Amino acid sequence: MSFGTAEYQERIYKTKKSMAEKGIEVLLITDPANMNYLSGYDGWSFYVHQMLIVINDEDQPIWIGRGQDANGAKATSWLYHENLIPYSDEYVQSDSKHPMDFVADILKQIGQDKRSIGVEMDNYYFTAKCYEQLKKGLPNASFKDATLLVNWVRLVKSDAEITYMKRAAEIVENAMMKGIGLINEGVRECDVAAEIFHTQIKGTKDFGGDYPAIVPLLPSGEKTSTPHLTWTDDRYKKGDSVILELAGCYRRYHSPLARTVNIGPPSDKLKNLSDVVVEGLNACLDMIKPGIACEEIEETWRKTIHKSGIVKESRLGYAMGLNYPPDWGEHTASIRKGDRTILQPNMTFHLIPGIWLDQYGFEASESFRVTANGCEAFASMPRQLFIKDGVLETNMN
Amino acid sequence: MSFGTAEYQERIYKTKKSMAEKGIEVLLITDPANMNYLSGYDGWSFYVHQMLIVINDEDQPIWIGRGQDANGAKATSWLYHENLIPYSDEYVQSDSKHPMDFVADILKQIGQDKRSIGVEMDNYYFTAKCYEQLKKGLPNASFKDATLLVNWVRLVKSDAEITYMKRAAEIVENAMMKGIGLINEGVRECDVAAEIFHTQIKGTKDFGGDYPAIVPLLPSGEKTSTPHLTWTDDRYKKGDSVILELAGCYRRYHSPLARTVNIGPPSDKLKNLSDVVVEGLNACLDMIKPGIACEEIEETWRKTIHKSGIVKESRLGYAMGLNYPPDWGEHTASIRKGDRTILQPNMTFHLIPGIWLDQYGFEASESFRVTANGCEAFASMPRQLFIKDGVLETNMN
Repeated sequence: MSFGTAEYQERIYKTKKSMAEKGIEVLLITDPANMNYLSGYDGWSFYVHQMLIVINDEDQPIWIGRGQDANGAKATSWLYHENLIPYSDEYVQSDSKHPMDFVADILKQIGQDKRSIGVEMDNYYFTAKCYEQLKKGLPNASFKDATLLVNWVRLVKSDAEITYMKRAAEIVENAMMKGIGLINEGVRECDVAAEIFHTQIKGTKDFGGDYPAIVPLLPSGEKTSTPHLTWTDDRYKKGDSVILELAGCYRRYHSPLARTVNIGPPSDKLKNLSDVVVEGLNACLDMIKPGIACEEIEETWRKTIHKSGIVKESRLGYAMGLNYPPDWGEHTASIRKGDRTILQPNMTFHLIPGIWLDQYGFEASESFRVTANGCEAFASMPRQLFIKDGVLETNMN
Repeated sequence: MSFGTAEYQERIYKTKKSMAEKGIEVLLITDPANMNYLSGYDGWSFYVHQMLIVINDEDQPIWIGRGQDANGAKATSWLYHENLIPYSDEYVQSDSKHPMDFVADILKQIGQDKRSIGVEMDNYYFTAKCYEQLKKGLPNASFKDATLLVNWVRLVKSDAEITYMKRAAEIVENAMMKGIGLINEGVRECDVAAEIFHTQIKGTKDFGGDYPAIVPLLPSGEKTSTPHLTWTDDRYKKGDSVILELAGCYRRYHSPLARTVNIGPPSDKLKNLSDVVVEGLNACLDMIKPGIACEEIEETWRKTIHKSGIVKESRLGYAMGLNYPPDWGEHTASIRKGDRTILQPNMTFHLIPGIWLDQYGFEASESFRVTANGCEAFASMPRQLFIKDGVLETNMN
């Protein structure tokens, strides 16, 4: 298990407190990160329906999943084995039996079917069909939207979680150095991606890496006009720039990091863009401290880069930490105008002021935690446009 | 683009035919594999809401996604740029604006809001909230469940798709050999996983690898009693067995493969289990041909292994090919009792008769395509329990 039982119980306590505030008696959790956060359960089984049930007047959650995954729950969670309820394989990807019918039956059997039931309405792993089947199976329940309820509980990290994110940062530094070091004219994109993956998963000699919730994002050339492309087997050309957005991951905890590299001398436009973004990024990191609101960071960014004429329309960053594919973001606080979330020590964010223009783009980012008086970037890596075969290359060694 | 425009148009044609049969005029597609299949779009942007809209009387689908991903759609899809409709960032993970509100507005603007609209009710990327917002925003539409509509169109592969899956098989063979070769007493699990990833992504000298939709599954020791655990940084011990379930991936097309290895001489129980599973697997592969039903494969399996007393309660396999996380399976045909899908040439499956008992398990699998007269396994690898430091090791070199 990644944490002691006391830490899990503390998390359950906070979750129940939030449930009480929202009038929720039974919480049905489908987000695999939330399931892991409360139970420790860690398996790549979220491609079938599964669930963790928190009941306000029961000590332990109930895990419901596919039969063959129950031994995985035994191996990785702190739950009593009698709280692990497997469903049979006839419920798997069937057009006649849905796992939520099974969940509804269990809730009836344990007398929880007439209660106020919270569901994660906008989570990937709670499909429209899940909700329809639950409503059919539990006609006497009253359903409430509990989207992000546990995610908000996750916002402030424990010291143990911070330790994991620092390990993830060690990994991402190594992976970023490896990627930037390899990118050059004539090298295949997939060969760079392969070395990055290797570094991410191997970890260090003291601890191994876990799989990040997002694969390396590596747009190159004109494709740097967009952030979420991966790689091809094309060879890099002289003059190409490449954006690297990667995370290190340790026991499902992430430290993402983005940098941009140019093969050969960069265009003046890209150099100028990188200067603007790095100035804005530094200004934000300098002013972050407990007590300010997320939107104040965005205001600092906007005022700092105003003179450049560059405008960033998308958000500047987001809360992150524990997660599973398809996202390492927590979907709670965002660093953008209108977000009044007040920073507290041990909140953790990925501050990623990427700019994507019509034919090129630039990213430089930092993952940080809020400290008692300011903030601390997890990774340590020059904030700049990296240039291969150019004067700045020595900075990365 | 992975395929010529004609192949995409053929796919659209088949999709519209199925829509017509089901009385669907407008199909809202959220499954990233289905989006890719019809448009070519390939980006790790499915962690935000996005959609491909197929309208029965329009030539081209419409892509709706986040602003910063529109250039990614330009770079990877065959769609006219005017058919790419970006939404602004205020719709991203917001508690006041939902991307499906934007989708509903677009459908109203283009006069498609009073039609019969198909939605993928049980897809990961179509949440309960998506459906609620669409129903609110489109009160005059009639909604139909179009879960798996495009997935079923994907069932029979083109020759071009088969070529990609064969490349994926070359990759998975290399990755499996690498993994089995490295596993030994004292080696860290994460170091084996890292080399497997490296091989998966690097590909061969002729073509690069893409990221598989599932990371390497590597349960070891007692954890081989369950299939979906990944790896830790523990060191393997003498006597441990390790299950490896991996895929190669080329341009989003998969060839999964599973094998089991034992460090040192295996227990009699494991050896016996492996003999039973391999005998059953071989019997299935020998009888597969066009015209039989999926359930007949399961019947062959059951009769072949009956004498052993071993019973497999979960399905034997499933259709697979193109996909994104969290699953490489297509969620259509399953190789199990009751599945009457009739095999046709170029259907592709992962036949994985894994057995997971209380304290140990065994997997050996093959991905295959149905041929004119039988079936063809994509990979070529001995079907056996691999033994490190044992007499069978030479078989793998």
